[in-house]
Amino acid sequence: MNTRIHDFPGQRLLDKAARKALATRMFDDLRDMSRDGPGISRATYGPGETAAMEYCAGIAREEGLAVRYDAAANLVIELVGKDPDAPCIVCGSHLDSVPQGGNYDGAAGVIAGLLAVIRLKRAGIIPERTIRVMALRGEESAWFGLCYLGSSALFGGLAADDLERPHRSEDKTLGAFMKDCGAEIDRISGGEKLIADDEIGAYLELHIEQGPVMVARDWPVAIVTGLRGNIRHGDIRCLGEAGHAGAVPRWLRHDAVLATANLLGRLDEHWRVLLERGLDLVLTAGILTTKPEDHAMSRIPGECGFSLETRSQSIETLETFYQLMRSEADSVCRERGVTFEFDRRSLSSPALMDKGWIDHLLATCEQLSLPAETIPSGAGHDAAVFANAGIPSAMIFVRNEHGSHNPHEAMEIDDFLCGADVLYEAILNPPV
Amino acid sequence: MNTRIHDFPGQRLLDKAARKALATRMFDDLRDMSRDGPGISRATYGPGETAAMEYCAGIAREEGLAVRYDAAANLVIELVGKDPDAPCIVCGSHLDSVPQGGNYDGAAGVIAGLLAVIRLKRAGIIPERTIRVMALRGEESAWFGLCYLGSSALFGGLAADDLERPHRSEDKTLGAFMKDCGAEIDRISGGEKLIADDEIGAYLELHIEQGPVMVARDWPVAIVTGLRGNIRHGDIRCLGEAGHAGAVPRWLRHDAVLATANLLGRLDEHWRVLLERGLDLVLTAGILTTKPEDHAMSRIPGECGFSLETRSQSIETLETFYQLMRSEADSVCRERGVTFEFDRRSLSSPALMDKGWIDHLLATCEQLSLPAETIPSGAGHDAAVFANAGIPSAMIFVRNEHGSHNPHEAMEIDDFLCGADVLYEAILNPPV
Repeated sequence: MNTRIHDFPGQRLLDKAARKALATRMFDDLRDMSRDGPGISRATYGPGETAAMEYCAGIAREEGLAVRYDAAANLVIELVGKDPDAPCIVCGSHLDSVPQGGNYDGAAGVIAGLLAVIRLKRAGIIPERTIRVMALRGEESAWFGLCYLGSSALFGGLAADDLERPHRSEDKTLGAFMKDCGAEIDRISGGEKLIADDEIGAYLELHIEQGPVMVARDWPVAIVTGLRGNIRHGDIRCLGEAGHAGAVPRWLRHDAVLATANLLGRLDEHWRVLLERGLDLVLTAGILTTKPEDHAMSRIPGECGFSLETRSQSIETLETFYQLMRSEADSVCRERGVTFEFDRRSLSSPALMDKGWIDHLLATCEQLSLPAETIPSGAGHDAAVFANAGIPSAMIFVRNEHGSHNPHEAMEIDDFLCGADVLYEAILNPPV
Repeated sequence: MNTRIHDFPGQRLLDKAARKALATRMFDDLRDMSRDGPGISRATYGPGETAAMEYCAGIAREEGLAVRYDAAANLVIELVGKDPDAPCIVCGSHLDSVPQGGNYDGAAGVIAGLLAVIRLKRAGIIPERTIRVMALRGEESAWFGLCYLGSSALFGGLAADDLERPHRSEDKTLGAFMKDCGAEIDRISGGEKLIADDEIGAYLELHIEQGPVMVARDWPVAIVTGLRGNIRHGDIRCLGEAGHAGAVPRWLRHDAVLATANLLGRLDEHWRVLLERGLDLVLTAGILTTKPEDHAMSRIPGECGFSLETRSQSIETLETFYQLMRSEADSVCRERGVTFEFDRRSLSSPALMDKGWIDHLLATCEQLSLPAETIPSGAGHDAAVFANAGIPSAMIFVRNEHGSHNPHEAMEIDDFLCGADVLYEAILNPPV
């Protein structure tokens, strides 16, 4: 399939039409090589991910770009800059997908980076600093229950027992899969940092939006302000007292459902007020259920379980809301004679994007006559790993309908090209 | 076992100690003959119920009381009054139980009635009007999914297809079980009324309380004002829109869980206010659940199902609250962009107890130096069938811990004897 790129031999300087045709071909080729039922599957550190990497590597080699795999088996494509020793600019994303997922989640960022370095190369432009396109391994947690594997490995962020994690369906560990892909698992399991401290000067990632905001706002591209972290409880239990639905009056009831509804209602109202104050927050109780074995219309529910997740770009907002939640839960307990049992709380820290790069990307949007809009990312990305490792990071979101992680992702190629143009112009004239 | 009653040969006039000993023996014997795992089982129109009836019939026969089974196979024990043609006073309840239930639910009322007529008989008292103790068949819905079978049959209230209902575990219909017990199923399936219009002048039922109020209030007995009816939906579905928990902002969400919590919170608050206005109401959402196949902490719940039951002694209160509920549901729909789908509503009418008999029973309590307190019945009883057939009806509740329909029912025999005394004194000097 790589030979298709020769359909564009006369397009040494990739004009807009040629970029559109090339990007379309690359997305189509990736989809064709990874079809699985209604969607596509490219397994983390597995054959599908590797095949997609080899496809991109083949194109890069034909363009005369340097291609290698790093110690975590991530694909690295380089256009060497005038000062090869200066910290490079990474255009990264991932090529793996969830099982039967969509074609654009991850791949869009790698193809945008590849398009940018091909465009520079064909134009004979040697950038000041080396541009490195990285296809990072294992961004999706669907295969081994852990995300950001390739980027975390680079920063010594994987532990030995992470490598013992089993594959979702095969009887083989993550470490074994990584080793088969050529990763140096002894160094990785030892927590060794695989890149030098000053090797990377900036990390840029283009990605499809996984929410509905840009469609609703009519923005083809938007610049990400930060990646929301989260505080989660998977299983909170409200314990009241079961009883006869007809025979127990209100003053003697300890109804677990009405207590839970009361708590959720209070949190919903706090959320509304905090948004009005300009804070960034989303609140979700995705799972809510009385005990199936006790189900009866005429029984006062004695127990009700639910999950609770808050996400915000601000750790302060997360912690403040969490304390508010616990305080409201205590209040509901006192008022209704129930108790709430909380399982272990999990915290994933937010990651703020770099102010300098955000401003530069917004200015680039304006220069290209695109809306210069900002948006938070509700989902996590490899950019969080780079940002939390102290590397100035930024993200460009591309409009996409129907969310992600499903076969119905709907990114328009013209929107993608807008985002890819922003990326190209931004690395052509970096802010520092 | 019946011979045990002869342990009290010298007690021709049943004094308090003898009544206690006799009642204790009868409860113990009934328990012994119907033990099933941790509780007791006396199946509707089945061997357990029939054996309990035969036990009571045997005692009545030994006392020289008239014993027969009526056309619905209910047990009828009579002490004929001075005016045998005057409408009789029925002291009724039931002898069936839920599977592995408690010994007192139903049986307490039959034994109280039996104790009263034995006491009258031994004292040589011939009441003005005939006293009829009735053990009504099939009060519990647990066996055939329909309650008040024996009393409904008396008033022509069972339809032909009701008799086709299968037993909960055996391959045999209700009609076949009824026939085996001697019921005249041709007359019953034809909807024929099995008693004369003026046959019964009053229906009195002693029953254990199935709620916790009397324990909390320290009342050994209480007089029932009415039996709550109910309006129910078994399955209301809130339909919103699923989405990524991190990536969809509040203004684009249609969260089925927060919408449901909002509706339940509003109803809970209306309930509180209506109680303050003195209305009788209980509200229960016994079943509440998001779709198990969609369960994920990070997914905005697109669907949430729940049951909703309100009970009240007032049909107006039930209907008013129901309209309020539908109106609040509409409001939640408009505000949150969700819809509520309601399954078929079921209505069971309340039954008010007779004012004259309530006053008479309260006066009897005072005369016996017992608290003269009233209480609504949250659960249904055969008394509702008699009351709704136009027969002046009344109920005496006896304090009982741990509710009913379980092996942990805990009625103190002394409380039972207080209730039995109220019944005895009340029929000795009826109000009309």
